[in-house]
Amino acid sequence: MSEAARLESIRTRGYARIATEEAFAPAAMLERYRRMLERHEFDDPGFRSLWGFYLGSRSPRATQIIAKLQDLGPQRMADMDATGIDRQIISLTGPGVQVFDAATAVAMARDANDELAEAVHRAPHRYSGLTAVAPQDPRAAAAEIERGKRQLGMKGVIINSHTHGEYLDHPKFSDLLAAAEAENTPIYLHPQSPSKGLIAPLLESGLDGAIYGFSVETGMHMLRMIVSGVFDRYPRLQVVLGHLGEALPFWLFRLDYMHRATVAAARYPNMRPLKRRISDYLRENIYVTSSGMAWAPAIRFCQDVLGMDRVLYAMDYPYQFVADEVAASDAVPLSDQERRQFFQTNAERVFSLQGS
Amino acid sequence: MSEAARLESIRTRGYARIATEEAFAPAAMLERYRRMLERHEFDDPGFRSLWGFYLGSRSPRATQIIAKLQDLGPQRMADMDATGIDRQIISLTGPGVQVFDAATAVAMARDANDELAEAVHRAPHRYSGLTAVAPQDPRAAAAEIERGKRQLGMKGVIINSHTHGEYLDHPKFSDLLAAAEAENTPIYLHPQSPSKGLIAPLLESGLDGAIYGFSVETGMHMLRMIVSGVFDRYPRLQVVLGHLGEALPFWLFRLDYMHRATVAAARYPNMRPLKRRISDYLRENIYVTSSGMAWAPAIRFCQDVLGMDRVLYAMDYPYQFVADEVAASDAVPLSDQERRQFFQTNAERVFSLQGS
Repeated sequence: MSEAARLESIRTRGYARIATEEAFAPAAMLERYRRMLERHEFDDPGFRSLWGFYLGSRSPRATQIIAKLQDLGPQRMADMDATGIDRQIISLTGPGVQVFDAATAVAMARDANDELAEAVHRAPHRYSGLTAVAPQDPRAAAAEIERGKRQLGMKGVIINSHTHGEYLDHPKFSDLLAAAEAENTPIYLHPQSPSKGLIAPLLESGLDGAIYGFSVETGMHMLRMIVSGVFDRYPRLQVVLGHLGEALPFWLFRLDYMHRATVAAARYPNMRPLKRRISDYLRENIYVTSSGMAWAPAIRFCQDVLGMDRVLYAMDYPYQFVADEVAASDAVPLSDQERRQFFQTNAERVFSLQGS
Repeated sequence: MSEAARLESIRTRGYARIATEEAFAPAAMLERYRRMLERHEFDDPGFRSLWGFYLGSRSPRATQIIAKLQDLGPQRMADMDATGIDRQIISLTGPGVQVFDAATAVAMARDANDELAEAVHRAPHRYSGLTAVAPQDPRAAAAEIERGKRQLGMKGVIINSHTHGEYLDHPKFSDLLAAAEAENTPIYLHPQSPSKGLIAPLLESGLDGAIYGFSVETGMHMLRMIVSGVFDRYPRLQVVLGHLGEALPFWLFRLDYMHRATVAAARYPNMRPLKRRISDYLRENIYVTSSGMAWAPAIRFCQDVLGMDRVLYAMDYPYQFVADEVAASDAVPLSDQERRQFFQTNAERVFSLQGS
């Protein structure tokens, strides 16, 4: 599609479609996953379930996703044109480098960021990127967040949930969180497979993946950050959650009630009073995107309970690359201005896309 | 409150309030819990976290709940009168007898049912009961479901989620499920603490309880039943979920998409095609109650996506005994007829209360 034709279609439509949770994977990273699986170098059951499937299966789903993940060129752009996506905000797919040892992870995150930044440089009107980091080395992660923002023009940070079973509420990750807050750059908290202590009964029933387990892993991760006081320590930190907030918006009322009751009863020594209610953090420090959730009732529900400025469009390419879902997202009953917020202006604000 | 005054207030209001997830605990069961905790007889971390708190804490929350759980007499009735609850559907609190050895569990379930049936017999206009069973002995459980329905006048069956880490999708529980279907009596699938394989990162952050872990445990349990084909084998089986369906209504769209994609890719040998979509089972074999979720946006959402006849009122007494929440539930924007469905007639139909 010519750039003129694309701009004309945005003008006619009234909004650009910015897809905010779109994945890529460097070939070298997938190669390393393959080696880890073959050599049984890494005993994480979630990694084995997810990447054993994608890299081992001959199914159309697996082979297409593996091919599309690695492409930051013509195929991706053609897919965007075919479904009317004007801009992808691209991030390193889960679990990214978070399954490696620290040194490998630091190096591979840098490489991934360089590769992504180059693709963005080639197509700045269509691609934006998020900085991948290695939480295994929080200082290096902090430095990479700075480099990503200042030198590579990245628009946020991608964290693919747990790192070797550890979550961002752990004090060891404070440098990483402080850097994201200081750079005024949002963290996209993206799913990966549930950590070892969480996966057993999900895995044995085939529920560990995107069907359910991802949301348990990621919703819990977000709540751990909130109840441990991360946002009291970093009040300006902003986190973006996919899949309409991993169902946490559904729980706003109960989270407030049970947190208050649990704190009052002093049930857990490490669950202390917070400055705000749980729902306040979820409304003031969190954005949610509609990745994988092209469903009007849930989108409208989140807009109602979080605010119209807190819900962003996403596709979840290439995992959920479905033209009909773009049409379904277009058809969510919204005013013209609200639809523009949902597809375009919220993303421009949250990810500082002005001038891109 | 005199019975005449109560009936007059129902007439004025236009509906009776039937609370459908209300808990009790026989003193003997709590005594046995206490002994198990003291003697470290039972190494389930979820049980220790939950009941170590309730039975060990001097907090007002814990002591009041323990007192109210054991009362099936004047205190409970006074609490119902004070908050305008006309009828409680009472069930054995989680984890019930499901933490005991099979013989103890079978005996104690019978005792609990006899105690509850007697209370219902004393106040048939205010109390109804569900049958507690010991899934540890599925044949005995099936017999108890029959006895509960036919001899004790029970209105359903209570299952407090996992039994020693096993879920109702396991083939060993087929007698239990077959009996519930044959007796045309719904199973209330109620939370308990997450099973051992699911609890570690929830417990270490204080999220294992009603604030979040209960919903993970119980939502997963429900999904395990669906994806394993329980409702293809027992198509008339009806399950009631509290807490507005443990957020599963929020996931209807994604569950359908990901189940279809996972089955098509043959990712798991034990995840086979089903006769219906996941959302069909959730709309046709499941009812949800508003226990602990006295929040209009989520109640309305569930009514929208499941159907007005699928959402029932509940309080979650004594765990969430809050007069203001009854008022909030009254104030959910509904037509008079819909409000009567929500508070009264859906419960009368699902739990066969006609003539009670």
